[in-house]
Amino acid sequence: MSHAQGYAAQSAETPFAPFRFDRRELRANDLRIDILFCGVCHSDLHTARGEWPGTVYPCVPGHEILGRVSAVGPEVTGFEQGEIVGVGCLVDSCLQCPSCGEGLEQFCENGFTGTYNGADRVTGENTLGGYSDHIVVRQEFVLKIRHSEEQLAAVAPLLCAGITTWSPLRHWQVGPGSKVGIVGIGGLGHMGVKLASALGANVVAFTTSPSKREEALRLGASEVIVSRDADEMGAHMGSFDFILNTVAAPHDLDPYVSLLKRDGTMVLVGVPAEAHPSPSVGNLVFGRRSIAGSLIGGIAETQEMLDFCAEHGITSEIEMIAMHEIEEAYRRMTASDVKYRFVIDMATLDKAA
Amino acid sequence: MSHAQGYAAQSAETPFAPFRFDRRELRANDLRIDILFCGVCHSDLHTARGEWPGTVYPCVPGHEILGRVSAVGPEVTGFEQGEIVGVGCLVDSCLQCPSCGEGLEQFCENGFTGTYNGADRVTGENTLGGYSDHIVVRQEFVLKIRHSEEQLAAVAPLLCAGITTWSPLRHWQVGPGSKVGIVGIGGLGHMGVKLASALGANVVAFTTSPSKREEALRLGASEVIVSRDADEMGAHMGSFDFILNTVAAPHDLDPYVSLLKRDGTMVLVGVPAEAHPSPSVGNLVFGRRSIAGSLIGGIAETQEMLDFCAEHGITSEIEMIAMHEIEEAYRRMTASDVKYRFVIDMATLDKAA
Repeated sequence: MSHAQGYAAQSAETPFAPFRFDRRELRANDLRIDILFCGVCHSDLHTARGEWPGTVYPCVPGHEILGRVSAVGPEVTGFEQGEIVGVGCLVDSCLQCPSCGEGLEQFCENGFTGTYNGADRVTGENTLGGYSDHIVVRQEFVLKIRHSEEQLAAVAPLLCAGITTWSPLRHWQVGPGSKVGIVGIGGLGHMGVKLASALGANVVAFTTSPSKREEALRLGASEVIVSRDADEMGAHMGSFDFILNTVAAPHDLDPYVSLLKRDGTMVLVGVPAEAHPSPSVGNLVFGRRSIAGSLIGGIAETQEMLDFCAEHGITSEIEMIAMHEIEEAYRRMTASDVKYRFVIDMATLDKAA
Repeated sequence: MSHAQGYAAQSAETPFAPFRFDRRELRANDLRIDILFCGVCHSDLHTARGEWPGTVYPCVPGHEILGRVSAVGPEVTGFEQGEIVGVGCLVDSCLQCPSCGEGLEQFCENGFTGTYNGADRVTGENTLGGYSDHIVVRQEFVLKIRHSEEQLAAVAPLLCAGITTWSPLRHWQVGPGSKVGIVGIGGLGHMGVKLASALGANVVAFTTSPSKREEALRLGASEVIVSRDADEMGAHMGSFDFILNTVAAPHDLDPYVSLLKRDGTMVLVGVPAEAHPSPSVGNLVFGRRSIAGSLIGGIAETQEMLDFCAEHGITSEIEMIAMHEIEEAYRRMTASDVKYRFVIDMATLDKAA
């Protein structure tokens, strides 16, 4: 075992505070990773605050992890001490079922192990995430990082926000010639704009905030539509091949479905706490349109996305915080006051706390 | 012009009654078809009763038309007088747009012309359908019928109920190895069971009526699930490649979405008058599942379906009625008291009425 230092919520009502715990001894195929940066995802907040069922406390969130390999188990191949690596939302799965066989570990038919608030497949212990100084992860779930050293903080959010948008863009074959809408220009959406644009698509960003227009253009959108403007919306009826909807707040889906071409698909990656208004069936029937869901991504496609981003110089837009600022960061996230992702500089973790 | 005799509703509140009107002179590429049989579709009822917006009166419904060619325009090729033919839901479209170019005239980007309650593309006059002794249709929208003479009455419903279920089964590539659910064993659903089964799929029928179990097995289902039985439903979680949902009444979609495998699709072909309860987004996200819509089918795929059915000896299960029994037939349809489609024997139309 190794002694770890992190920040934990001890209950849904307790503010985060320093927390000492033990990481497991390295198993034969494990890496120990000293964490440099950890992105702050809405899922962290929902889990820590008990807004989703099933949080096990103490809860140490964090699944956008960037770090340096500090030890390797005897059967580890392909990773070396000192190497920069990433860990995303998954740290284990059965690796035996058809979904795992297809590289879609997020759909493991025996259940994947989340990076936090999951049950270790060997011991059943609650997994603790990246708001900590180091983590131990089996090598199959560790990603290679090919970005430069100075980019690393802004690479961390690719491990969740990046892959969550990349996976549906790739699965629905977005590329040159595609007209793609990205709904919601936040942590996920801003990555969607960057990635779809780099994939060669014609990207239209949808936002409720006119103030985000210039920024969305800078991120790679060819056009920005303020979704409350019926004229702007109407001008694009039936013209989109694909829409990636990143908004988790309940909202009327029909105006977006109406923007799809025949055979177009709108993919939802945000799960609202309360249901969206029920979408119109006629809108699906007339146009053979689909509404689908997508969940993060598998390890192979996460590596593909990271390599693509390194090649194209793509990172997340971030605001760096110190570990002790996490409560304030959550408050600002809830108010949508972040452009576009908080990343914790893990050097700020007070080991003596 | 030719003098036609039919049955019309003069308003949403008026019972059907005999109605004389004129059919247009044959245009160069028109056929005149003496109608032998016409199936009775729920859309007929919704339109005639003004339950959907936009009904133009007098209304002569009917878009499951089986008849014999009685005259051909000078530019008609490939059809001869005396030949048995069919006409479905469409009698015209632009034939220029990308959807028409792909043989998907039902998605014509300039609007298809419905067999009834449509606007003729030349004159703008309201189209009048198959509850009549003859009809005039341009040849591109006329189907070849290769069934035997004694099957013809039961072929009529293929022109709408058949193609509405065939098109999604083909588009989503149902075939050997597919596990397919058919929800609702009525006019559409019973064709879905027959067609999916003939395509080689493993077909499971879902019904709220335990009394339909034996019949659904006879139609080709390998298993019948009473959808109110949570245990029966639960035994099939995550196991379906595709579900064709033919139920137009508002109902909870989630139990069916839960039955889909990863990447599975449920297609809705019924448009409810009031919305279904809003489907769970989590159910779509966990499994990358889709809910889609589908609308009848194009002319080429309708011909494909008819040829497939002729080859496999497939027809609809019907109950023949006389034209004057139409009000009683609507009453029984509304009460789901028909197995599985009413077909009007047009020889019963009283020409002297």
